[in-house]
Amino acid sequence: MNRINKSERIGTIIKILTENPQKIFTLNKFGELFECAKSTLSEDIDIVKNIFNKFELGEIETVAGAAGGVFYKPVMTKDKIKNFCEELCAKINQTDRIIPGGYIYLNDIIYSPEISYTMGKALASFFQHLEFDYIVTIETKGIPIALMTARVLNKPLVVVRKEGKLTDGTAIHMNYLTGSSKRIQTMSLAKRSLPKGSKVIFIDDFMKAGGTAKGIVDLMKEFECEAVGVGVLMATKEPKEKLVEDYVTLLVLEKVDEEKKEIIVKSSL
Amino acid sequence: MNRINKSERIGTIIKILTENPQKIFTLNKFGELFECAKSTLSEDIDIVKNIFNKFELGEIETVAGAAGGVFYKPVMTKDKIKNFCEELCAKINQTDRIIPGGYIYLNDIIYSPEISYTMGKALASFFQHLEFDYIVTIETKGIPIALMTARVLNKPLVVVRKEGKLTDGTAIHMNYLTGSSKRIQTMSLAKRSLPKGSKVIFIDDFMKAGGTAKGIVDLMKEFECEAVGVGVLMATKEPKEKLVEDYVTLLVLEKVDEEKKEIIVKSSL
Repeated sequence: MNRINKSERIGTIIKILTENPQKIFTLNKFGELFECAKSTLSEDIDIVKNIFNKFELGEIETVAGAAGGVFYKPVMTKDKIKNFCEELCAKINQTDRIIPGGYIYLNDIIYSPEISYTMGKALASFFQHLEFDYIVTIETKGIPIALMTARVLNKPLVVVRKEGKLTDGTAIHMNYLTGSSKRIQTMSLAKRSLPKGSKVIFIDDFMKAGGTAKGIVDLMKEFECEAVGVGVLMATKEPKEKLVEDYVTLLVLEKVDEEKKEIIVKSSL
Repeated sequence: MNRINKSERIGTIIKILTENPQKIFTLNKFGELFECAKSTLSEDIDIVKNIFNKFELGEIETVAGAAGGVFYKPVMTKDKIKNFCEELCAKINQTDRIIPGGYIYLNDIIYSPEISYTMGKALASFFQHLEFDYIVTIETKGIPIALMTARVLNKPLVVVRKEGKLTDGTAIHMNYLTGSSKRIQTMSLAKRSLPKGSKVIFIDDFMKAGGTAKGIVDLMKEFECEAVGVGVLMATKEPKEKLVEDYVTLLVLEKVDEEKKEIIVKSSL
């Protein structure tokens, strides 16, 4: 390989860090790739840090010590999250999204890879400071946002099923009551999904009374695990008291009225 | 903002392009961000292209004309896909993954955000040259790989349900036969998910006889749409003849024997 110049080193480092959020790369690894001294790389990393600061591209963090290195932390500023939530509201507050039964059609939004990635980045910003091992979600519509949150935080995702599956092997089944309509539902999770003692964050698309979230909190106890955070894309304004104490939501559903063709979703920020 | 130097411009361009696969950014947009001339930016883009070539980081493509600009195409070389598939095989070919009934436990692999992203990148490499509008999958385990394929190709994802949901509004339901066990299954898709005339690629985690894939092909016809490609993570070696003519798979399941504790999965490349 020809001699590698500074722009090339910096460009390559940024490409690799950006595509692998939260993953630590040692200076040795880059040293081998570029055949250059550690001191040169340290200077490069400082430049990369400055670039990310200057253009608000997220954070570059360095870890000292033997296992040390550098990684990319895709945080969004409060302002950027707020803007994003307001853009989402503008997309969602369209009367043709109201579905018979007073539901809101959101499939095009939650399944958009670009939007779900940004949702993941926004939700991740609230949980970056916590120590935890897994992101947990429940099928089906929570999966995209949970997967993207997991990607941004670089943690494995665990998907709870609504019924047991042969491909899960031995599983723990649990019945729970939905918070709003008090229907009995089942959740099921493969026994080997979670090691005892794990800390998890539950991510879902929607929360009304919080029955599902409470179900997950209880299911985690069956696994001798602990839910240390709950985050959703959208929560209803009413009931104000949810069945889980603490949660983060990006959007608040204030009103959806099928007859009056009214829908009001607001940013929570 | 202070004067912006070449490394900063190149680093920022690479950050933005990498985080937005297949999305076209105009030179004007970067020109405004950096307050610099188009000729300077053209030189920068050439350098970015060279960096991506030199370090095999994917492709940077430029589009001429009024709507022109530059975008990142995350292709993997055949060699990299092959290596990745072989790493996957090493992970999968473990006898403790065999589940009663002769199934294979893969949840930890398909729900890993890092692995599913690379799966998406690998599968996307086979479909980059096709013209199409949507990625389609069916719940539940196909969603992560399909979402990541959609992200890499920057196309919206459509998720077919196994039963109708209130939040889908009006939907088309279709019964179909699984190819291997000839059981009747249902698939359901919200009517507004797909505009008439759309071309789609179906992505799923697993294919045995291809009954589900054929079901999707038929469902697409009900929507006056066309499936122009099928890609899966793993297909069984037998039956050799699948119910769809053409498909791409990353892995081939040659054998899984619960009694003999044998599992043989190979790379398809």
